Amino acid sequence: MTDKIEIHPEGRAEPRPDETLLQGLGPLPGSRRVYVRGSRPDILVPMRAVDQDQTQLPDGRVEVNPPVFLYDTSGDFGDPEKKVDIARGLPALREPWIEERGDTETTAAPASRFGRECEADSEAAPLRFNRTRPIRQARGGRSVTQLHYAKAGIVTPEMEFAAVRENMNRRAYEESLQKLPPEERRLLLAQHPGRPFEAEIPPEVTGEFVRREIAAGRAVLPANINHPESEPMLIGRSFLTKINANIGTSAVSSGIAGEVSKMLWSVRWGADTVMDLSTGRHIHETREWILRNSPVPIGTVPLYQALEKVKGVASDLSWEVYRDTLIEQAEQGVDYFTIHAGLRLEHIPLTLPRLTGIVSRGGSIMAGWCIAHREENFLYSHFEEICEILRRYDIAVSLGDGLRPGSIYDACDAAQKAELRTLGELARVARSRDVQVLIEGPGHIPMQRVMENVEDELAACDEAPFYTLGPLTMDCAPGYDHITSAIGAAMIGWRGTAMLCYVTPKEHLGLPDREDVREGIVAYKIAAHAADLAKGLPGAQIRDNAMSKARFEFRWLDQFHLGFDPEKALAMHDETLPKESMKKAHFCSMCGPKFCSMRISEEVRQWALKEGLAGRAPSGR
Amino acid sequence: MTDKIEIHPEGRAEPRPDETLLQGLGPLPGSRRVYVRGSRPDILVPMRAVDQDQTQLPDGRVEVNPPVFLYDTSGDFGDPEKKVDIARGLPALREPWIEERGDTETTAAPASRFGRECEADSEAAPLRFNRTRPIRQARGGRSVTQLHYAKAGIVTPEMEFAAVRENMNRRAYEESLQKLPPEERRLLLAQHPGRPFEAEIPPEVTGEFVRREIAAGRAVLPANINHPESEPMLIGRSFLTKINANIGTSAVSSGIAGEVSKMLWSVRWGADTVMDLSTGRHIHETREWILRNSPVPIGTVPLYQALEKVKGVASDLSWEVYRDTLIEQAEQGVDYFTIHAGLRLEHIPLTLPRLTGIVSRGGSIMAGWCIAHREENFLYSHFEEICEILRRYDIAVSLGDGLRPGSIYDACDAAQKAELRTLGELARVARSRDVQVLIEGPGHIPMQRVMENVEDELAACDEAPFYTLGPLTMDCAPGYDHITSAIGAAMIGWRGTAMLCYVTPKEHLGLPDREDVREGIVAYKIAAHAADLAKGLPGAQIRDNAMSKARFEFRWLDQFHLGFDPEKALAMHDETLPKESMKKAHFCSMCGPKFCSMRISEEVRQWALKEGLAGRAPSGR
Repeated sequence: MTDKIEIHPEGRAEPRPDETLLQGLGPLPGSRRVYVRGSRPDILVPMRAVDQDQTQLPDGRVEVNPPVFLYDTSGDFGDPEKKVDIARGLPALREPWIEERGDTETTAAPASRFGRECEADSEAAPLRFNRTRPIRQARGGRSVTQLHYAKAGIVTPEMEFAAVRENMNRRAYEESLQKLPPEERRLLLAQHPGRPFEAEIPPEVTGEFVRREIAAGRAVLPANINHPESEPMLIGRSFLTKINANIGTSAVSSGIAGEVSKMLWSVRWGADTVMDLSTGRHIHETREWILRNSPVPIGTVPLYQALEKVKGVASDLSWEVYRDTLIEQAEQGVDYFTIHAGLRLEHIPLTLPRLTGIVSRGGSIMAGWCIAHREENFLYSHFEEICEILRRYDIAVSLGDGLRPGSIYDACDAAQKAELRTLGELARVARSRDVQVLIEGPGHIPMQRVMENVEDELAACDEAPFYTLGPLTMDCAPGYDHITSAIGAAMIGWRGTAMLCYVTPKEHLGLPDREDVREGIVAYKIAAHAADLAKGLPGAQIRDNAMSKARFEFRWLDQFHLGFDPEKALAMHDETLPKESMKKAHFCSMCGPKFCSMRISEEVRQWALKEGLAGRAPSGR
Repeated sequence: MTDKIEIHPEGRAEPRPDETLLQGLGPLPGSRRVYVRGSRPDILVPMRAVDQDQTQLPDGRVEVNPPVFLYDTSGDFGDPEKKVDIARGLPALREPWIEERGDTETTAAPASRFGRECEADSEAAPLRFNRTRPIRQARGGRSVTQLHYAKAGIVTPEMEFAAVRENMNRRAYEESLQKLPPEERRLLLAQHPGRPFEAEIPPEVTGEFVRREIAAGRAVLPANINHPESEPMLIGRSFLTKINANIGTSAVSSGIAGEVSKMLWSVRWGADTVMDLSTGRHIHETREWILRNSPVPIGTVPLYQALEKVKGVASDLSWEVYRDTLIEQAEQGVDYFTIHAGLRLEHIPLTLPRLTGIVSRGGSIMAGWCIAHREENFLYSHFEEICEILRRYDIAVSLGDGLRPGSIYDACDAAQKAELRTLGELARVARSRDVQVLIEGPGHIPMQRVMENVEDELAACDEAPFYTLGPLTMDCAPGYDHITSAIGAAMIGWRGTAMLCYVTPKEHLGLPDREDVREGIVAYKIAAHAADLAKGLPGAQIRDNAMSKARFEFRWLDQFHLGFDPEKALAMHDETLPKESMKKAHFCSMCGPKFCSMRISEEVRQWALKEGLAGRAPSGR
């Protein structure tokens, strides 16, 4: 794979990325790319088929273990048959769908002043992605949002694509089990009853169900018409719990190639969306490279760039600068914007009794602006205009929690609650303007108060999908906040949070490197999967059942491949038992060859068979 | 510290441990050893006092940040003033307390046959710890257990020691805050209301409260009279949630020096008990080295060694071999035994419908024995005799869950539940014989079924302390099971599990190395602390509040030192900002110098002060 990813051309100012940045970006080992077709030939949803060895039964027969299907966020980068040239970007999968709706038009020049300046900036020329596709916008001020179509009763190809993805090819898996004895089939498909709270969990996700959830505002499908490369995905509590990974340059470190590489690395490990939180130089150019190569929706916080434009002086921010930034990023293709419109002037004094004040970057910038001007937050006062812009590109608004608690002490305080009420008010405005809405949530919350945060949000915001940062369940484990927060994330996901923003081990300490990003994503895949099992999403337990069968049968490679991180699992196994033959050994280093509990329990089964107790056991076991 | 730990003498067969085994075993950086005295001069409870820098207030004044106290499991190894010679072991802290009770006697020769054989084994001589203290046992068959004393109304020095430890010197901390303005004091002592379910949480732990909880069987204080080096600690749901780390040689790897080093490493990071699960050669000798140097209670599974004695053939096990092993280990000083007495012959067919059979090593050995002999589990049928042995040394019994589920599929099944009922029956037998009882629990449990496991256990076992392995909330993340299980552990701890057995990243893959042990322990310290916050244990939030204040004030070193892993926090911070001056920088690498949200929110406070809104803010903020 490495040899297929290059950043062209040579000789640009941006230093050619060193090899380490491009290493390890290929498909995850042990799985095969397949595409599940929807109702039309251009709905082809990528999945990973994890092939498994057959089982050697004690009586000499063999039993087939069909492949397990997992949805795949890595786009064409995860398909060994496809060659991606980063300098050209991904193919525009959604372009025909957007075009056939006939409600958009293209334009040659950017509508944003800054966008035009960037195009004219010769200094940045060597860094620039060579974009060939024109900018697209709604024709005649129409709504071109998935919410608009959903309200109108239209099931878009995007909705159907996302629906197919949610089902993870479960029918094919079930059919492949038909060859197995009924007892074995029952084992592999069994699942504990879930507790989904108020979420409706359909037996199968259909395009129509997706439409209904989007129309009701309970689900969001972020899909800017200028990011046709993205593969549609859903955020809603009736669906698989999603995770977001943050990347971004900052004043202190990083660069364009590094950020593109981090994005690709993130989607390889399973990030469902990526937020580009860059704050350093060349934000515009970095974002373009990321968008043109991202198979997943990209989110940003436009305020960060607006602040750069006024040289970091919060009080110099203005609606005009911000508005131009929204349009600039809208035209590039950002799929959702975090907008801190809920932090009102009157909320600011509520933060005074806090231990850690305002920890949200966006929140503190807007608070700084409000007090400098003694004026209401211009994002709040211009919120309807913001929605007018967003609906012309189908950008979802993620209403930022600028007053989220940054410590256990500040959790669930008056400032947080006051802002949440405003977020609910804004959510209603956005929806009435056909803009899809997410609500951002905390932060730091002790475990016994995690669930009430979802309840409050659903009530205040008419069930808009909740999107939380963790929450961290304590303050005192720097270096391990992927774990302190995975606990909170799993619980809040179970209760109904639709997307979990990851936290890496470097939280509070520094910028995450590649390994931190991987650790953070896997920790959040775990939290999301724990939530899906607990809610009882259909088929959620298939992967666990397959893994446990592989474990019981000592199919080591299958265990690695079915896991969230096949490479680490293999490496860890090989630390103790590196020989190739040990991949088939009927023991492991934990107990050694003479002492294996799994082997002994196999003997118990054999005894039971002999004793005539086998009627209770699955055949062949 | 490294230079103080040596294994003497030279020239023994056991290879001298290489330097890497002894590295990094000194006290954690940034804290100072203090001792909190109880009612008598020999009750001196070790704590770590985490000293903090003062705060520079905006008005030029400084504010003192008093040290935060944390209990310390590292014994004399964590005291830089004390030199420990591993070849001599730790001082026998509890010996005078045991002696003054006058109910024990010493004996020169081991009562166990195997113990005598080991003493006579010239081949093992070079490996042997040179024990000088005679073996101790109850005089005239008396009960010498903490449960016996508690029932008799006696508050032992052990109970008082453990009570002092639970309070973590909170009164001294509160007093040290008297100098601060009332608002600041309130901040640092504030805590969210907890939800302790049925657990009684006293405002302060007293020796009498400890006695009452032990007498009621709701708490266990493991304290073999032959392990007087151990520092008393409590396991009960009214107390701080405890964690156990497993170590142990196996047929495939490791050695004595490595295991002693792992034990010291474990207590350095905060393991409250350590289980020695060795299964390879020289189990007896390894255990002696560990016990003589362990400041925390040591647990074992005597069955593992009994099986070694019959060359690994489960069907050759007998009550005689097992009984001799109990006495052998009792005389060495093991503080608690995991005994798989609850797995009855009639339960075995209940495991046939399982996906992963019997995954407990002890459970599978006993199942193997039962079916080979068509006989009831001899641990069940001899349980009263077992209790007779245990009460003569004060060994707690940890009733093993030999039928714990090894996969999500098998969670909460009939086999698990049947065994739990038997564990309840055995718990009542043990208590009637004055033997302290813990109940072991799963395993693999999906999140929505975690809490019912505690409820079932408390009901079936008359509230005996629950001691669970995780539970893992899914099967499919090999390499990350410290995280899949930290989620379950935090939740089950909140619900009332008293001790959490750690799971390392190597679970299901291999034997944990030092870094795995550290990761596993810290993940479990996190789970335990999340549980303590959620239950609302008094003072649980002190550390978080102090950390968050340090964070808000950019006291970087204080943040590292207050964390669970000061060394990793420092190293991670230094990856991005290595310069010494950056430890005092009023920004971090996440946002850079111009963009710090914490700095901006400090400006908000300044504004509020000017605007006359300061009445709501703590003074000086």
